[in-house]
Amino acid sequence: MSASASVSPHPDAIQAIMALVRPGLARLETSLGVLADSDDPILAPMLSTVLPGTGKRLRPALALLIGSMGGTVDLEALNHMAVGVELLHTASLVHDDIVDESDTRHGASTLYARVGNALTVLVGDYLFSQAAQECVATGNLAVVRLFAQTLGAMAQGQIDDANGQLGGRHLWETLTRDSYYRTIGGKTASLFVLACQGTGELVGLSSAQVAGLREYGQNLGLAFQVFDDILDFTSTEEQLGKPVGSDLRRGTITLPVILMRDQQLSDGQFRAAFEAEDVELQVHMVQQSGGVAAALAEAESLVSRARAALDVLPPGVQRDALDALAYYVTHRAH
Amino acid sequence: MSASASVSPHPDAIQAIMALVRPGLARLETSLGVLADSDDPILAPMLSTVLPGTGKRLRPALALLIGSMGGTVDLEALNHMAVGVELLHTASLVHDDIVDESDTRHGASTLYARVGNALTVLVGDYLFSQAAQECVATGNLAVVRLFAQTLGAMAQGQIDDANGQLGGRHLWETLTRDSYYRTIGGKTASLFVLACQGTGELVGLSSAQVAGLREYGQNLGLAFQVFDDILDFTSTEEQLGKPVGSDLRRGTITLPVILMRDQQLSDGQFRAAFEAEDVELQVHMVQQSGGVAAALAEAESLVSRARAALDVLPPGVQRDALDALAYYVTHRAH
Repeated sequence: MSASASVSPHPDAIQAIMALVRPGLARLETSLGVLADSDDPILAPMLSTVLPGTGKRLRPALALLIGSMGGTVDLEALNHMAVGVELLHTASLVHDDIVDESDTRHGASTLYARVGNALTVLVGDYLFSQAAQECVATGNLAVVRLFAQTLGAMAQGQIDDANGQLGGRHLWETLTRDSYYRTIGGKTASLFVLACQGTGELVGLSSAQVAGLREYGQNLGLAFQVFDDILDFTSTEEQLGKPVGSDLRRGTITLPVILMRDQQLSDGQFRAAFEAEDVELQVHMVQQSGGVAAALAEAESLVSRARAALDVLPPGVQRDALDALAYYVTHRAH
Repeated sequence: MSASASVSPHPDAIQAIMALVRPGLARLETSLGVLADSDDPILAPMLSTVLPGTGKRLRPALALLIGSMGGTVDLEALNHMAVGVELLHTASLVHDDIVDESDTRHGASTLYARVGNALTVLVGDYLFSQAAQECVATGNLAVVRLFAQTLGAMAQGQIDDANGQLGGRHLWETLTRDSYYRTIGGKTASLFVLACQGTGELVGLSSAQVAGLREYGQNLGLAFQVFDDILDFTSTEEQLGKPVGSDLRRGTITLPVILMRDQQLSDGQFRAAFEAEDVELQVHMVQQSGGVAAALAEAESLVSRARAALDVLPPGVQRDALDALAYYVTHRAH
């Protein structure tokens, strides 16, 4: 099929995929613009800082692709879904910047840096409410239920993560692979699940197909975060927009570190670098270790599982795009 | 009617009213206890700090009273409603303590004081998600819609409030009575509306009765906050659990100040005290001024409006209790 060929698994495929959902993404941007253009003179400038983003809009793109797989498409309901997913993502980033005390994101000042702690907490809350209202506007109680569960899973994942950073001086020694996956399952994969499973439910796919989409979203989200955590060691400061090894620098133990430890704990060098809290040496060791390659193998395995889960979906250009997106997740530069 | 007589409008009426909803409140406490008893070793102690409160449970009590006015009562759905309302209240208090940098509340250490800024943000988010899940569990999309709107209204009211504290050096001169009411409508009254209107919708009251409950909740909530703002000047430090005049001390301009200003702006003393930023003198002036009495008259007028809105409801012990509760709001010591 020619449509299928146009989205072959290649790093540039993301452009072809985005072309498929361009009308839906344009509608999303319009909706976000309307929301940012609030009547409230205090809220408006703060919303304008965070909403009209230059982000990849990956999560709403998933919703839009899946939204055209059902029999009938209510474009308005689908737009509410896509906007709800993106607003939930934005709200969580706004609060993350507080937790991480981040002054910049992708090279721009964060809302936290601009208006301070108190207002950033409240603007995040406001965005959660707008996300909830969009999900309610789909008119589908199952979608709203999944939204509420997602909000909880994300908060719980962030709490696990923050607790590690704040209290876990010896986390490098104790954090298990299972705990790592539990944390990123909450903080990252749950939102991919909402976009995939939620939209499947919204457009009335069969329960087997909805289950397939859940499996796809879960594995895609995990792979996305694992690869993000790899890039933190293998990318450049310019591409990351922050120093290489930022996770370790703020005390976050990710999969490459865990897998390196499990390979090399008997090696005294590893323990020495962590006990001495020598972060430069730690970062260098991870970069040179087999931990990065082992983590990449896990990411690829998650991608394979995500792609396999698509089998139950109707064949066509959307399914091919979801397949290519899964490939893209571990073949991106940032 | 004897039942009616047992909840006559008297300060002690609150005890009689609470007796009416005691089984429902016991069920609520059980549900909150289950939630606090989380499997998560990080979350559990934090939830135990904020959930099993000694609070008045005023908002869930409203829901429980109204919940027995409908034809059929699904006790499980009603419990979800009451728990959802209380969790939303708790979540907003948790984030308020960040905004106000409060180390104590009602004499106990706040979560903010115990675990710091980052985790408190996230635990608040987690509580919002639990509140949302409870509202979803009522199975009523109209209730969930109102919940999402309430979350937004509360955040917007808090943003107005915080913005005043943070940036409003001359707010004492510029804040209008309308702005004040808009702010407290969002931060306080909206949750009373959710408890009243939402429960009315849940138990299938007529649209005229639901509208009456909305009007009741709105006016009751406004009166509650106006009276709170009065107590900040007229109560004692012991009863308040914080210094008298705390609002002015942190730069929050409330109704007694606005009404004093409107009476006395031509009086040079008022302007002098505020321009000199002499908070002790400001507090003293408000206490001595006609602002407190004028604010009390407005609170009483709001209470009258709340009571009048009950006319459309079926007569009986619940309606009498709502009537007595309205009276209580401006006749409490703290």
